[in-house]
Amino acid sequence: MTTISPTRPPLNGVDTPTLFATLDAAKGTPDLAKFQFRATNRWLSGTHNRSTIRGFYGAGQEDTSRTEDFTYDADHPAVLVGTGHGPTPVEFLLHAIAACLTAGIANIAAARGVALHAVSSTVEGDIDLLGILGLSDRVRNGYQGIRVSFQISGDAPPEVLRALVEQSRARSAVYDVLTNGVPVSVEVSSG
Amino acid sequence: MTTISPTRPPLNGVDTPTLFATLDAAKGTPDLAKFQFRATNRWLSGTHNRSTIRGFYGAGQEDTSRTEDFTYDADHPAVLVGTGHGPTPVEFLLHAIAACLTAGIANIAAARGVALHAVSSTVEGDIDLLGILGLSDRVRNGYQGIRVSFQISGDAPPEVLRALVEQSRARSAVYDVLTNGVPVSVEVSSG
Repeated sequence: MTTISPTRPPLNGVDTPTLFATLDAAKGTPDLAKFQFRATNRWLSGTHNRSTIRGFYGAGQEDTSRTEDFTYDADHPAVLVGTGHGPTPVEFLLHAIAACLTAGIANIAAARGVALHAVSSTVEGDIDLLGILGLSDRVRNGYQGIRVSFQISGDAPPEVLRALVEQSRARSAVYDVLTNGVPVSVEVSSG
Repeated sequence: MTTISPTRPPLNGVDTPTLFATLDAAKGTPDLAKFQFRATNRWLSGTHNRSTIRGFYGAGQEDTSRTEDFTYDADHPAVLVGTGHGPTPVEFLLHAIAACLTAGIANIAAARGVALHAVSSTVEGDIDLLGILGLSDRVRNGYQGIRVSFQISGDAPPEVLRALVEQSRARSAVYDVLTNGVPVSVEVSSG
C-alpha cells in the first residue's frame, strides 16, 4: 500500500514536491534510505591536516553528482601550538550542528507552507583543555556544553516559527549524534 | 610547586618545547585551559547555509591571531533534495574526528620523540535516513556507527606507532563528544 504525501509548491528554495516524492520513495523502498558518508584525511605537518569529502553511497547506489572534491583544513591556533591554517577540529562540530538544524528548518518550513525571511544562528562550545592536556582526570576531553541560539523570521507567528526549530531539533542527525553519542571504531595499519 | 616537563626538540612540525611549556603553564594556572569556541551560521536557500568561524576565547583572553574568517558551506546533495553547494552537515563530523585524531597523533609522536613519515585516514559513517525522514521510530536520526581507519608510518616499530593512535584516541576532544555525547541547548528568538 502506497501512501501519497500531500503536495505543496516549492518554497524557501526547497523543491517541496520532490521532497515529498523522496519521502514516498523511502516509504515504499526502505533500503533507499541507507546511506554511507565518507571522508579521507592526510596529515600535513604538526596539527595541520586536510580532509577530502566527495563520494557517498545512498538511494541504492554510489553518488556521482559531485564532480569535485570538497577539501577542508584543520589546525590548532598559535596559542595551542599550531599554525592556524584552519579551525580546530572541535569548531567543525559547531558548524555541523548549526548547518544541520538550519537545513531542517528550511525543509520543515517548506513542508508546512511557511515562507522564511531569514534564519541565522550562533553556536558556542565550552571546553576545559585540562582534559585533553592530561592534567586532570576529572575534566572530560570534549565540550562540556554547546549552546545554539537561533534568530528566525518568516510569514508566521512566533510560536509557529519556534515550532519549526523544535521539529528540526527532533529530527536532526547531528543533534542526535552530539547529544546521544555514536559508536566510533578506530583501526590502525602501520608500516 | 611547579613541575617542569621534559623537553625534546621540535619534531613532525610540532614545536615540542612550546608544547611542553604550554602544559606547564596550564598546570600552574588551570584557568588558562578554559576555552570557548564559536561559529555563526546563516541560511542561504533550501538546505544550503554557511558558517563563519573566527573568534574564540582561551588562555585567559579573546584570541586575536586569526585575521580572516573561515567560512564553510553545507548543503544536501541532489538525491536528498538539495543543491550540492557543500557537504552534508554529517560529513563535517567525519572531517572533525579524522582531524582531531590526526593532530593528536602528531603532538604525541613529537612528545615521545617519534618521527612520523605519513599519517592518513579514511572515515565512514553509516546512517539510515528513515530516522530523520520520520518514517521509523525504531531508527535513530544520526549515524549508527563511525569507522576510522588509520595508515601510519614513521621511525618506530608498529606497536609504538599504534600506541600513538591509541593515546590520541584516549585524549581526543572530538572522539569524546562523538562517543559520549554532550548537552546541547537550542534557543530561539523570532520576529
